[in-house]
Amino acid sequence: MTQYKIPVLPGDGIGPEIIAEGRKVIDAAGERFGFDVEWIEYPHGADHYLETGELISEETLKELSRYPAIYLGSIGDPRVAPGILEKGILLTARFYFDQYINLRPIKLLDGVWTPIKDKTSKDIDFVVVRENTEDFYIGIGGRAKKGESKDLLEVRRTLYSAKFGLDIETDSEEIGYQIGLISKEGTRRVIEYAFDLAGKRKKHVSSVDKANVLSDIYGFWREEFNEVSAKYPDITTDFNFVDAITMWFVKNPEWFDVVVTPNMFGDIITDLGAMIQGGLGLAPGGNINPTGTSMFEPIHGSAPKYKGQNKVNPIATIWAGAMLIEQLGEKEASDMIVSAIQKNILDGKVRTYDMGGRSSTSDVGDDIARRIKEE
Amino acid sequence: MTQYKIPVLPGDGIGPEIIAEGRKVIDAAGERFGFDVEWIEYPHGADHYLETGELISEETLKELSRYPAIYLGSIGDPRVAPGILEKGILLTARFYFDQYINLRPIKLLDGVWTPIKDKTSKDIDFVVVRENTEDFYIGIGGRAKKGESKDLLEVRRTLYSAKFGLDIETDSEEIGYQIGLISKEGTRRVIEYAFDLAGKRKKHVSSVDKANVLSDIYGFWREEFNEVSAKYPDITTDFNFVDAITMWFVKNPEWFDVVVTPNMFGDIITDLGAMIQGGLGLAPGGNINPTGTSMFEPIHGSAPKYKGQNKVNPIATIWAGAMLIEQLGEKEASDMIVSAIQKNILDGKVRTYDMGGRSSTSDVGDDIARRIKEE
Ligand SMILES: CC(C)[C@H](C(=O)O)[C@@H](O)C(=O)O
Ligand SMILES: CC(C)[C@H](C(=O)O)[C@@H](O)C(=O)O
Repeated sequence: MTQYKIPVLPGDGIGPEIIAEGRKVIDAAGERFGFDVEWIEYPHGADHYLETGELISEETLKELSRYPAIYLGSIGDPRVAPGILEKGILLTARFYFDQYINLRPIKLLDGVWTPIKDKTSKDIDFVVVRENTEDFYIGIGGRAKKGESKDLLEVRRTLYSAKFGLDIETDSEEIGYQIGLISKEGTRRVIEYAFDLAGKRKKHVSSVDKANVLSDIYGFWREEFNEVSAKYPDITTDFNFVDAITMWFVKNPEWFDVVVTPNMFGDIITDLGAMIQGGLGLAPGGNINPTGTSMFEPIHGSAPKYKGQNKVNPIATIWAGAMLIEQLGEKEASDMIVSAIQKNILDGKVRTYDMGGRSSTSDVGDDIARRIKEE
Repeated sequence: MTQYKIPVLPGDGIGPEIIAEGRKVIDAAGERFGFDVEWIEYPHGADHYLETGELISEETLKELSRYPAIYLGSIGDPRVAPGILEKGILLTARFYFDQYINLRPIKLLDGVWTPIKDKTSKDIDFVVVRENTEDFYIGIGGRAKKGESKDLLEVRRTLYSAKFGLDIETDSEEIGYQIGLISKEGTRRVIEYAFDLAGKRKKHVSSVDKANVLSDIYGFWREEFNEVSAKYPDITTDFNFVDAITMWFVKNPEWFDVVVTPNMFGDIITDLGAMIQGGLGLAPGGNINPTGTSMFEPIHGSAPKYKGQNKVNPIATIWAGAMLIEQLGEKEASDMIVSAIQKNILDGKVRTYDMGGRSSTSDVGDDIARRIKEE
């Protein structure tokens, strides 16, 4: 029997509840497909931080890097200021393990209610490949007060002066600024991944940028896209400004096959994507380093107000678990999990509140696990 | 009779066709409400640029700054690289005139088809106040090659090193970067505008940011928001991460009254907003400097493939014209234009193709103008 060791970080809020169901389902798949999982639990999250002051240590990260895939619940807690835990644990892991692909399938399962009209599971079935280690997520920025950092404080004024020879005074005392950057290599590798993926799907890649305004960073993205694209003559392409693509996701989701996007725009459009596929309760994601340590998670947050109520939908997490074991090579078991999710939904009897049902988190996990073992 | 002088820049693509209808409707309102408009035409756009090499000169901008309101068609042409005309004319005007409010009503008129389920004109009726002169729109960024700008090239590596004491090598040869900044004064004034506006509406302001990741720039935004908010005790507020708000626009648009947002996020969410109010053919916008020169435009682009076909929907432009004359003080005439648009739609006989009809651009303009004169 194949043995896997999978580190698991249940995290905050509803994290432990949904991760419990994810584990249950993977264990059920293991029984059926002949593998066994040893789960290695890590305590990182708000409680651990508030008790010890530690977010996640380099030692822990080094230890985790020995495994091909991590299972993550959700990170974030109202007792801690926004960003501390998310940056200190989630983004730290994405960066540390160089998980340069954030893979987010936008797939409306049969029987799921979508808020948009006239679309079925045939129309909503694409994948967003989000760059995951660069762009405005690098965490570089700051504040400046008048006098302290003259060059930045006077940026706007300089801009006016350079363009119009004007000398407009600003009485601003303080600014906040942020820097984003993308590298040639970092951009190339994620775009190549998208083209390779499209080669196995409907052979179309859509690029997202805002090259008409953020021209320095995204003009660069567009050039890289064109360079990579030239190597894939059988894959068709199109360019989308990020503002426009939010419209097409709602109006014409059937246009898309693989969508490749810089990090921040990817964050935004995949939440919208989650909504059109039925809501955050149904949207899984994988942070992938194809040759290193990957990490799989629902794309929703820790929903603190539902904590401990055994109420929220575990499907996003279970689906992320399916992506995880596919990454480990268990393709058949992975497909079986997705198909059991689909059957649970079509059957319609065991559903959480967000899907109009009255079942609990663990009821849904039980139902999906049972289908894997019995059907 | 009141006399107004209104500079008009029809611009590119379908710009001249839609602006002609907007003028027609404002002229009709003038006949009925006792004002007369002298239209002063400006040629700026792709043709002018390709012929003369000029985008828009300081002299022209100075001249335009003598007027309270400019009427703009649309800017953008496939013969010119993305960004040249948009930055060189549209964004230049927004910055030059310090039009720090980009006001975008998201209002589903009765009888308009929205792609989202179960929502009516009662549910979709809010206003986005987009900051319009700062953030990532300031046009500061660049490229760096290895060796040239060591500090930037090594930013990612430094980040790793600082956090983990690691020495990760990147083989990246080149980067593209972009800087965004917001000032205290620039942030305060737009947020105050939003609170004042909410005071005249349903008394709720929603803020948009991504303070959990772009913490330097948007943490600053959030602090300013809190400072301003403290001065308006009767206005309720909430915070939305930009990714999440795209979901709520689709799922719960009825939650919103006034949404205030930094520039770039405002660009993205107002296109989505336009879609839920029935599409870009129906979405007007105003670039406002309350004490200077404002500029009104449809939020859609120049739709080059429809140019000269008398086919596209002029309603966004006509509605922007209503916002323009409201700015000039003609509130009653402005309301009459919006009500004539509403009647045209409810009547349903004279509609362009995007609304399921077969009428032309000028048919729709004629119908709306007639209703103003006759009804
Ligand atoms: C929690 C947050 C840091 C994260 C992100 O912005 O990437 C989340 O929104 C996501 O999309 O996974
Ligand atoms: C054309 C472009 C520069 C502009 C913007 O990004 O602001 C447009 O998308 C808008 O929203 O008015």
